Amino acid sequence: MKIVIIGCGAAGATAAQFARKKNREAEIKIFEKGSYPEYSKCALPFVVSGELSPDSIVEFSEEWFRNSDIELRLNTPVSKIDFGNKVIETPEGTEEYDSLIIATGASPFSPVETAGRTYSLRNMHDAISIREESKNAERAIIIGAGLIGLETAESLVKKGLEVTVMEFLPEILLTMVDEDMAKIVRKEIEERIKIMLGHRVKEIKEKDGVMEVISSDGSGKETALEGDFVIVATGNRANTKLADGLSVEKAIIVNEKCETSVKGVYAVGDCTQYVDIVGNAVPVGLGSVAVRQGMVAGTNAAGGNEIMPPLTNARTTKIFGVEIAAVGPLRRNIPFNPITGKFRGKTLPEYMGDLGEEAYVKVYADSSGKIIGAQAVGREAAQRINKFALAAHYGLTLEQLLKAETAYAPAVAPVFDLSTLACEIAKRRLR
Amino acid sequence: MKIVIIGCGAAGATAAQFARKKNREAEIKIFEKGSYPEYSKCALPFVVSGELSPDSIVEFSEEWFRNSDIELRLNTPVSKIDFGNKVIETPEGTEEYDSLIIATGASPFSPVETAGRTYSLRNMHDAISIREESKNAERAIIIGAGLIGLETAESLVKKGLEVTVMEFLPEILLTMVDEDMAKIVRKEIEERIKIMLGHRVKEIKEKDGVMEVISSDGSGKETALEGDFVIVATGNRANTKLADGLSVEKAIIVNEKCETSVKGVYAVGDCTQYVDIVGNAVPVGLGSVAVRQGMVAGTNAAGGNEIMPPLTNARTTKIFGVEIAAVGPLRRNIPFNPITGKFRGKTLPEYMGDLGEEAYVKVYADSSGKIIGAQAVGREAAQRINKFALAAHYGLTLEQLLKAETAYAPAVAPVFDLSTLACEIAKRRLR
Repeated sequence: MKIVIIGCGAAGATAAQFARKKNREAEIKIFEKGSYPEYSKCALPFVVSGELSPDSIVEFSEEWFRNSDIELRLNTPVSKIDFGNKVIETPEGTEEYDSLIIATGASPFSPVETAGRTYSLRNMHDAISIREESKNAERAIIIGAGLIGLETAESLVKKGLEVTVMEFLPEILLTMVDEDMAKIVRKEIEERIKIMLGHRVKEIKEKDGVMEVISSDGSGKETALEGDFVIVATGNRANTKLADGLSVEKAIIVNEKCETSVKGVYAVGDCTQYVDIVGNAVPVGLGSVAVRQGMVAGTNAAGGNEIMPPLTNARTTKIFGVEIAAVGPLRRNIPFNPITGKFRGKTLPEYMGDLGEEAYVKVYADSSGKIIGAQAVGREAAQRINKFALAAHYGLTLEQLLKAETAYAPAVAPVFDLSTLACEIAKRRLR
Repeated sequence: MKIVIIGCGAAGATAAQFARKKNREAEIKIFEKGSYPEYSKCALPFVVSGELSPDSIVEFSEEWFRNSDIELRLNTPVSKIDFGNKVIETPEGTEEYDSLIIATGASPFSPVETAGRTYSLRNMHDAISIREESKNAERAIIIGAGLIGLETAESLVKKGLEVTVMEFLPEILLTMVDEDMAKIVRKEIEERIKIMLGHRVKEIKEKDGVMEVISSDGSGKETALEGDFVIVATGNRANTKLADGLSVEKAIIVNEKCETSVKGVYAVGDCTQYVDIVGNAVPVGLGSVAVRQGMVAGTNAAGGNEIMPPLTNARTTKIFGVEIAAVGPLRRNIPFNPITGKFRGKTLPEYMGDLGEEAYVKVYADSSGKIIGAQAVGREAAQRINKFALAAHYGLTLEQLLKAETAYAPAVAPVFDLSTLACEIAKRRLR
């Protein structure tokens, strides 16, 4: 049996690992266009800041692949797949397969043409370039106030740069959380960076060795901003060029076995999409999902029969010390009027005074009280969201969360956790 | 309608609050033998350390009771209940009731006779006495290395005292977590206090103005330890003296409405017991449970029909910065051979190196994989336990927890949370 994997990111490498686990005999080959074995893309901002070295974020090393008897071909782009004849083409020749796993990821896109010292942050090469660029720089301009834009902003502030983040939308982080939660985060971080909201980039140009970004605000007024370099972080698009012949929408469509519309051909990670809890098609954009898909597709490609559980899109980040997490759809993507409960409170009992930190939890439920998502800001946001992810995954209700105990101690948590109180508020609005 | 409540702790005061919520007209009276309105007993160690003032830990003030039209009689012990005639006796006379709520709490007990400057830490008076005593003291001896003993030890160390904690059992914290988890905690904290395990106290005496505790170890060898004062923290016993005529075991037995064996008589808080997830009778010992019982009993005493959800005993504390939490029965109280999964790992992805902290999670499941409890040590232990509490409450399995996503980001959490990995290990042991 011969398994070919295209792309050695988290999804592809995990697929290789689980294919090998399932089948000790199979011939497994990975083709990767870049020059690094699998590393954590999420950790790239820490390479930019210099806190982590490029080598330290490698998770599956070349040695690991050798020891697992998996052939890793770096610097080897795949140019074409012939699904009928089960063969792929590379500059070095063709390669047959019995099972194929497409893990081609996604690529950044820019709303305008880029010029001069303009970067994106998607791969190791990008991170090293930005790190080097920032050594002699004082001012950076980041276009896009999403998760990548802000994480990169923080990494540059750590290096002493003055950073301006420009965002087309009226608030930061709007692909991660709703406007109300994002605003809380912005208020916390805007002393550290300059944030320009509602600014559409019109042009990026180099002028006398200085980069200039021209933008216009809602009224059409143009602003010219100068900086030493520019980072475009306006989002990614699934790499589906090789998927010609497969069902593709925003990204490659896969079933619960991570199989595409062609039998024996699997797809995993950022090049795929899934259907969320309220029925939306959502491109995968999370490392954690990529890994889970890799486990399923790798096992299945090697003869297994694993099923991908429904995805709730649990996500988190920490920006300038502010933890943010969410699970389930954003409000604007919920196609009905959800029941909402929002609670702002302290992470410790009232009597602990300033030792407790302000934190926020918002929960969404359907009209039957079933939890469909939640968002949180502040200390332990991600752990609270993990509980909501469990609830959303198994269709637990507000009432059920309310009735479950939470641990209480003065130095740790209040009698009722913020997550419970958000559910309490939402429950009152049921009917 | 006349509702009488005996005891103004967390359970009694919450019962009064919910009785008033349910019935705007009822006459509600609380009889409290102490001189303070409701305060957080859990916060008493912070009064000992001086970090919080006695007034600051009051949660339901006398003014609150006045405004809620609830009569609070402080310094008024109840000496007898006549269940047949529905009347209670106090030094000031008798009082009739339609519904009665017993919230008499528990009292510390000492394994030996106490003498001289020996204290326990159960009420505000105790905390103030210990705080004053510690002002001119250098060495304190604490008997009992449970949660109260260790929290008090920390509060005294904060005041600069040298503290020795003496424990009869072979490990600390054995009523909260299993020996393996407790040992991890002890290794972290034993630089800060002296811990003597396996020492049975034989005598507490005062000699020439110095306190002396005589103990014997397993071999029978006696040790005499000197200190300026002694705190006995060897546990509490339910106050059931007034419950003569009710079904009582270790504590007052109540049904799911928090009603005792006599109709119209409710009991809540530390004077009651409940049946845990594996069928053991367990005395209530948690403020969070007391509050939930108060909500149910208060509502029902005023004519409502609330049901107490099953209790999972989610509990936590933080000692010298080490967070510990657990839910469900201890191993020794599980009457069958549970499936166990234990995981030790970092709270951040591997590549984040020392930025991640060591943490531990252990999960218990029955032979069908259903989660019955968990224990955790380290950062975010309580939040992880809250997720397990939800799982145990609704009978979710290891497999179900495994399949639920957790949020991942380099600065927040690894791809698979420690809780997921503990479940993974346990699942492999399922036949």
